[in-house]
Amino acid sequence: MATNRRIVLAARPVGFPKDSDFRLEETPAPAAAAGECVVRVSYLSVDPYMRGRISGRKSYAAAVPLGGVMVGGAVGKVVESQSDRFAVGDYVVGNLGWQEYAACPAAELRKVDPAAAPLSAWAGVVGMPGLTAYFGLLHVAGVKEGETVCVSAAAGAVGSVVGQIAKIKGCRAVGIAGSAEKCRWLRETAGFDAAIDYKAEDVFSALKTACPDGIDVYFENVGGPVTDAVFPHLNVRSRIAVCGQISQYNAVDAPQGPRILWHFIVKRIRAEGFLVFDFADRHDAALRELAGWVSSGKIKYRETIAEGIENAPGAFMSMLRGGNIGKQLVKLSDA
Amino acid sequence: MATNRRIVLAARPVGFPKDSDFRLEETPAPAAAAGECVVRVSYLSVDPYMRGRISGRKSYAAAVPLGGVMVGGAVGKVVESQSDRFAVGDYVVGNLGWQEYAACPAAELRKVDPAAAPLSAWAGVVGMPGLTAYFGLLHVAGVKEGETVCVSAAAGAVGSVVGQIAKIKGCRAVGIAGSAEKCRWLRETAGFDAAIDYKAEDVFSALKTACPDGIDVYFENVGGPVTDAVFPHLNVRSRIAVCGQISQYNAVDAPQGPRILWHFIVKRIRAEGFLVFDFADRHDAALRELAGWVSSGKIKYRETIAEGIENAPGAFMSMLRGGNIGKQLVKLSDA
Repeated sequence: MATNRRIVLAARPVGFPKDSDFRLEETPAPAAAAGECVVRVSYLSVDPYMRGRISGRKSYAAAVPLGGVMVGGAVGKVVESQSDRFAVGDYVVGNLGWQEYAACPAAELRKVDPAAAPLSAWAGVVGMPGLTAYFGLLHVAGVKEGETVCVSAAAGAVGSVVGQIAKIKGCRAVGIAGSAEKCRWLRETAGFDAAIDYKAEDVFSALKTACPDGIDVYFENVGGPVTDAVFPHLNVRSRIAVCGQISQYNAVDAPQGPRILWHFIVKRIRAEGFLVFDFADRHDAALRELAGWVSSGKIKYRETIAEGIENAPGAFMSMLRGGNIGKQLVKLSDA
Repeated sequence: MATNRRIVLAARPVGFPKDSDFRLEETPAPAAAAGECVVRVSYLSVDPYMRGRISGRKSYAAAVPLGGVMVGGAVGKVVESQSDRFAVGDYVVGNLGWQEYAACPAAELRKVDPAAAPLSAWAGVVGMPGLTAYFGLLHVAGVKEGETVCVSAAAGAVGSVVGQIAKIKGCRAVGIAGSAEKCRWLRETAGFDAAIDYKAEDVFSALKTACPDGIDVYFENVGGPVTDAVFPHLNVRSRIAVCGQISQYNAVDAPQGPRILWHFIVKRIRAEGFLVFDFADRHDAALRELAGWVSSGKIKYRETIAEGIENAPGAFMSMLRGGNIGKQLVKLSDA
């Protein structure tokens, strides 16, 4: 019987997570109960939302219990099936957790087609992050042709797709990211009209140049001073799709900043928070469209890939620091 | 020829306005040019938005110039007409400014019917404040039967109507106001289900009791610590109609407070700022509905009335301090 290596939550992080908040465990690989499949994981996704799941803070989903396997989406191959929905050898995506083998109810798995997009992409551009970009921009913000779209964390898995969908829809796409290399990639490969390095530039001033007609849609991933610099550039009847607040996730005390509601009145701003799960009934159609854009080259993507389950905590912490360009993955096995 | 007494802006207030920011002037009463009417003002409206008009801060409307007549809505009687739209003796409402006589293009005046509601009410419950409550609650927030509506500055001209429309629509209405007398009036006369005195009670705790099922719609008039106390009580898919920020209007430095965007994600909150003018094409129909609710006794209203143009600045400053219950008016002449 195979060994399953997995990462469990050893302690609730206070502030920025550290190695000792996670623990590597070895257990026998699970067997499938009736209706379940066992999946050998190829790629783990590590995402900002996971910081919320390991804090004690009340949120939209239950926290990972202490000693529990870290949550997370992953793609892999079915190695045992007790369900007629999947056969051994099928590729699937699901919430499999940070582990090499996962037993999962077949009803919670989705089949993926490695011919339509590479396996790793199903955890990124044609997975949850791509869907988040798609629904946030098109349905929450309701972007229209000719508008200026600004996105923060623009070189991340979600942000990079937001800007490229904006371009597909005939908009001006302006990204804010955290390094010269990220900005270069956004401009030269991902086709953004402008990219601002918030670590090297004054974001407020740079936005003046990058958004000569102001901002119609702000896709909000970060919060904090970057978002403060965006607010004065928002146009009348602009929309904010509130997707993430990564700059705030490791705060120990409640973050303080300029009050923003006055802007809402003066500019008649609409802001709406959303979760990708709210659009679950439309995920299939959106994934087909995203896969089409990827295969036609209209959406480019990039991945930052760590190797081995033992490196998942490090990859997660690196992603929280902005160490990734594009989707941060952890490769556990060849497909 | 009659004398026109008027209040002009003498200085841009820094912080809370003071007497010396205003000046009383006497000029000859104006004559009507072609297409204009001269109106003798009966009731001046003083409203929170005027604080924005006299600051140098960029906003949705042009500032009152130094030496210019203070802006403001008012109701009065036509005493001269060079337009076939109005006859001498007609009652009208319009942006007449803080003065006893105003010449105004007839196209910018609206006829009012003192038989449908008392003249003073056309500056309040069946005027701009009533329309603000109506469109903010019904169109911006999209309130639905059975929901819990919380409104701040609840005993003001807008807030008191918000809660009563909420009751008409089958909602639970909870108000936050600044004195025991205001809260008593809201509960005993205006029919609110609960009212919280933010100067005497801990708003966060009081809301727990007042809103056992959380808050579905927050009608936001104040900003600051009161709003901070509301946020944790907002339900999933709650809406905030952002109407005013009166607690912030006299701030000299940009007000700071807890960052709020994380709440938007966790609760999928939608917040939208609005101005009553955005709904101008629907004002007539809404006024008919409001007048109907007033005459059938479904909406009660209260007025705080100062007398004489020389007391307009004082009435304005008192209103900014919350000295009014219901609509703050300044009576200039009998109708």
